Amino acid sequence: MSLQIIPVSILQDVSFGDDLVDILLRTKAGCSLKDGDILIFTQKVISKQEGRKINLSKINPSLLATGIASAYEKDSRIVQLILDETKRIVRMKNGIIISKTHQGFVCANAGVDESNVEKGFATLLPKDSDKSAQKIRKKIKTKTGKDVAVLISDTFGRPFREGQTDVAIGVSGISPIVDYKGKQDTFKRILRVTEIAIADELCSAGELVRGKMSRIPIAIVRNYDFGKKNGSLDDLLRDKSLDLFR
Amino acid sequence: MSLQIIPVSILQDVSFGDDLVDILLRTKAGCSLKDGDILIFTQKVISKQEGRKINLSKINPSLLATGIASAYEKDSRIVQLILDETKRIVRMKNGIIISKTHQGFVCANAGVDESNVEKGFATLLPKDSDKSAQKIRKKIKTKTGKDVAVLISDTFGRPFREGQTDVAIGVSGISPIVDYKGKQDTFKRILRVTEIAIADELCSAGELVRGKMSRIPIAIVRNYDFGKKNGSLDDLLRDKSLDLFR
Repeated sequence: MSLQIIPVSILQDVSFGDDLVDILLRTKAGCSLKDGDILIFTQKVISKQEGRKINLSKINPSLLATGIASAYEKDSRIVQLILDETKRIVRMKNGIIISKTHQGFVCANAGVDESNVEKGFATLLPKDSDKSAQKIRKKIKTKTGKDVAVLISDTFGRPFREGQTDVAIGVSGISPIVDYKGKQDTFKRILRVTEIAIADELCSAGELVRGKMSRIPIAIVRNYDFGKKNGSLDDLLRDKSLDLFR
Repeated sequence: MSLQIIPVSILQDVSFGDDLVDILLRTKAGCSLKDGDILIFTQKVISKQEGRKINLSKINPSLLATGIASAYEKDSRIVQLILDETKRIVRMKNGIIISKTHQGFVCANAGVDESNVEKGFATLLPKDSDKSAQKIRKKIKTKTGKDVAVLISDTFGRPFREGQTDVAIGVSGISPIVDYKGKQDTFKRILRVTEIAIADELCSAGELVRGKMSRIPIAIVRNYDFGKKNGSLDDLLRDKSLDLFR
């Protein structure tokens, strides 16, 4: 069966404390949710709703932040936010800071982002995106009776390849990895290692209907038959000891 | 508008020299192609069609291959193929070989793969997947009059995150990266760096309708409005000098 990826356009800018489920249910697509739909929310809309939009004028950069900012031609207040969000710097070179965040992501600038917010502000990643996803999923169940899965999506770069793609930073109601280990292929041979990060693929698919300049903070994937309904972000994060590139 | 991702099921196993476009056009989905469709073919079906399926009994492993195979508990003939396909070893640890292939991909086992072929065989990556994609695109244009884009897709692991996702290893009729640099966001602020690897996102979306155990070697993405129609695989491959992780 064909998969459908439905963009959900929202005209208003979302603010701290807004009810995202109410906003979703007022849209046309939100009125016709189906059991088994996968709803993908952007990091940006979740961060705004959760008050993770920071007024830069309130940041006092440390000497370290000021030093890095001057060497990297960055705003020292942004560098301070990056340092605050960072558990460990993974690489710092060519004006690029790659860090492991407190949530466990390895990404540029610890997820601190100035795009799609007013001048003088930046957004931080949600503190606990699995929880953000779970809250939304439960509220949808309560308000509509529908069993959906929810993913939070962000745009990350990666080694080896140019360009960025969307990956999952929060997961609820779906196992983010499908494990084919031990299953048989079309030649009845046992597949040895094939674990597909479907949550990341779903977020990438969702990005395709969004674009970067439009107000489409939600995408719905319909007709995707995912098996297991339990899993968390942790399933997607490789332990440093198993990573050949850290 | 909603995006549609259509699986194309093919019952036969594809062999060296088969006409993939003829096979496609005999399917129901193949009969109703539209201008602007993006057709995603798996690496496996292209490799088989191009004779890149190797009979392992004809491989004579070198001493080096035999040594690595014994240390890594691998088949020495497979290791020999991996070495043949490798331009440079990027990492070799914990039984995992990551290499840069002659085509420029950084991936495990240089793309040598024993899944979904008969026992005693393995497939290599297509020698020039852009060319493979271009041939198919032109043939579709000739036979149906339809202007489509064609991607070749393979399943790669990546650093930092568990699980594999599909990415593009061949491109024709579409620019694999959308560059938002210098464009304005919803707050009329200039987006600084956002290049989206749409070809990889499209291949990931295509993987979702395929699974690993079924005979669905082609997916069609419909209603995706891609702008530029020119580009190549090279746009997706980061130069080593710009890569913080090599």
